[in-house]
Amino acid sequence: MAATETPRLVAERARAATVQVAAAETSTKNAVLGRMAALLLDHCDELVAANRKDREAAKAHGTTGALLERLVFDRDKVLSCVKSLGLIAGLPDPVGGISQVQRTLNGLMAGRMRVPLGVILMVYEARPHVTVNGGAFAMKSGNAIILRGGSEARECNGLLGRLWSEALANEGLPKDAVQVVSFGHDAVGELLRLDDLIDLVIPRGGKGLIRAVTKQSSIPVIKHFSGVCHVYVGEQADTQKALDIVLDSKLLMPAVCNAAETVLVDASMRHWLPQLVAALGNNGVEVRGGPVVCEDVPGTRPATEEDWGTEYLDLIYSVKVVDGLDAAIEHMSKYGSGHTDVIVTENYSQAQRFLRRVDSAVVLVNASTMFCDGATLGMGAEIGISTDKLHARGPMGLQELTSYKHVIWGEGQVMGDTNAWKKAEGTGRT
Amino acid sequence: MAATETPRLVAERARAATVQVAAAETSTKNAVLGRMAALLLDHCDELVAANRKDREAAKAHGTTGALLERLVFDRDKVLSCVKSLGLIAGLPDPVGGISQVQRTLNGLMAGRMRVPLGVILMVYEARPHVTVNGGAFAMKSGNAIILRGGSEARECNGLLGRLWSEALANEGLPKDAVQVVSFGHDAVGELLRLDDLIDLVIPRGGKGLIRAVTKQSSIPVIKHFSGVCHVYVGEQADTQKALDIVLDSKLLMPAVCNAAETVLVDASMRHWLPQLVAALGNNGVEVRGGPVVCEDVPGTRPATEEDWGTEYLDLIYSVKVVDGLDAAIEHMSKYGSGHTDVIVTENYSQAQRFLRRVDSAVVLVNASTMFCDGATLGMGAEIGISTDKLHARGPMGLQELTSYKHVIWGEGQVMGDTNAWKKAEGTGRT
Repeated sequence: MAATETPRLVAERARAATVQVAAAETSTKNAVLGRMAALLLDHCDELVAANRKDREAAKAHGTTGALLERLVFDRDKVLSCVKSLGLIAGLPDPVGGISQVQRTLNGLMAGRMRVPLGVILMVYEARPHVTVNGGAFAMKSGNAIILRGGSEARECNGLLGRLWSEALANEGLPKDAVQVVSFGHDAVGELLRLDDLIDLVIPRGGKGLIRAVTKQSSIPVIKHFSGVCHVYVGEQADTQKALDIVLDSKLLMPAVCNAAETVLVDASMRHWLPQLVAALGNNGVEVRGGPVVCEDVPGTRPATEEDWGTEYLDLIYSVKVVDGLDAAIEHMSKYGSGHTDVIVTENYSQAQRFLRRVDSAVVLVNASTMFCDGATLGMGAEIGISTDKLHARGPMGLQELTSYKHVIWGEGQVMGDTNAWKKAEGTGRT
Repeated sequence: MAATETPRLVAERARAATVQVAAAETSTKNAVLGRMAALLLDHCDELVAANRKDREAAKAHGTTGALLERLVFDRDKVLSCVKSLGLIAGLPDPVGGISQVQRTLNGLMAGRMRVPLGVILMVYEARPHVTVNGGAFAMKSGNAIILRGGSEARECNGLLGRLWSEALANEGLPKDAVQVVSFGHDAVGELLRLDDLIDLVIPRGGKGLIRAVTKQSSIPVIKHFSGVCHVYVGEQADTQKALDIVLDSKLLMPAVCNAAETVLVDASMRHWLPQLVAALGNNGVEVRGGPVVCEDVPGTRPATEEDWGTEYLDLIYSVKVVDGLDAAIEHMSKYGSGHTDVIVTENYSQAQRFLRRVDSAVVLVNASTMFCDGATLGMGAEIGISTDKLHARGPMGLQELTSYKHVIWGEGQVMGDTNAWKKAEGTGRT
């Protein structure tokens, strides 16, 4: 990146690139993805070396734990990126499809055509694979993207940015369609106010990052806040299903946002508490219980008020007995984050009420929270999970990076009375 | 409104009302609309008198012209509101429908259920009928709404607010579902920062209002900026259709946002310029022409650079000759507002390219710009026209005031391997 680079210049170049990338054929976009995959393989050793440099510098700066772990971009990560590129290339192109076509009263044909949003800005921490996936999602959906990864990943991201340029140029698309920048905080703040050039901001990272981006941005932001997810074991629950779902929703990937944090047990299922707590203990899950749980299962660590709103991202479950469906929903709306919530029940009416009334991005009956997932929901893959309600909710796939325009085919229709106009007078015609 | 009223209290009450209004049956919501219509008729004289008071006060403050005209709420306006309420009651309920249901690989059934957004804030000028329509749209789509009209309409809006309360209470819904407030600028600024309580802001009014709202708001805003709309008379245009469309797009309602402001005439249609200019003149439309127009039709007033980006909202057309479709699109993207644009042509390929390439909310072939309209586009009615791309684009109907949630019906599915878990150990079962 040149020393004279400014946020506005970067955004202007992205905006200019939108015309070509929006009009690009599916085959061209897929060719870019294929080329990028080949380049990743060709440059695998360099990428791994650049990442090692990044990690050493990060360690020298005192970075440890999860952040350092998310920074890892080894051969396996490169191969997983290559696989993702293939997967995204294989997804249907969301651009140009027309839906909801209807014949209007006036005899017009009117429908909605999917179009790219324009310029997307992603601000994220560590995770160099986002530099590959974010670029690929934007490309395939016909958008230009500005990728601003964390300074911890500067070397590796810089190299990935050069590979994107090469992949794009190779297929005749403007290299500014995918730009990787390493701007500092002030320059990022400036980017976030370029609402004349950038259409959407997607922050990915911790709450601090998301709050800072949302606060500074004058561009619409799609946020992904915490996932305090619940499994409600309701009336007439099948205990075998309940146990499978409670365990799967935690054990499979405890650190992801759609891992469950709280089990709400209906009062009618109170007899099942000892079995639940024992099974959790046997699988290494710490239990923090409400008063009834502590009473029925002596030795259980009592949950504090804070526990109910905590996203543990760890092998810990808070467990509470609630008095019926309404109490369960009240608990979720008070402490939850509207992310992913499950009911386990064999009672038809309870299942229907839960689906209708719970105000979360993903609501499930008798299935694990792990199914809050782009692949399961038919998107093939996901670029993030929105906890917002506007534009996109829950897992976001290619379609969620598009907008639409109304297209109308007419045959000369007008709304007013053509006889009222003096059309030909004085024109030589009569 | 009590003296102790604060923006936060109003918003908290709206938020509390969302639970009931979101779950309300269609018949209940329609009954509220019917009740409101009856109340408007019962209180017609009072409303007209309150409006007279508002207008006298406005005149005394020096208000004139369009603003004063938009303030009028006479018997005809009341009756037109009654009609709108009936129309909105007759539209399908957008809430609770499920679409895109599919069977997933795991045997789950997954779909998207339409849900209300939550709390909407409308900030608008004059126009008391927005106090009726805005409330009706919010109600029918299961949202709570805070209506902040202009101070010029204070008396009339205050009365309409009391009628909304009565209509809601009468059907057992919380009266806070529709709240009419007359906060001053500082308090509106405070409302616009309550992003924990309000989900969407819709400003309606002049550019100044929209910019001020957008600048202050930390809540997502759906904007409706100016409509600089074009009619491009392209290659092989049918001149009869072209004339009808050019005239209709201006004469029918010159002051609406989707009235056209510029006619772009393809160079191949240059011979038609004298007829076009004469017809416009005969219908009282002033023409401001580009160089070629002024050359071919002597006496035409030359257009300035400023003309091409101006929304006249008046009987004025700027007219320019462009060299082909690409030049037309370039002109539109430079000077237009991405609102509504038309091509008139009998050439199939040109029509297809125009539809695909023009980046506007509504793109038409051989039809008047007047068809950028909620009723035409199957929405029954519209609450506004979005020139944004996120969430909603073009005319916004009931569905555009909703979001969705993913709903998943399972039969006990989990993602991981259930045999890996120590489920029954130590529980007394084996």
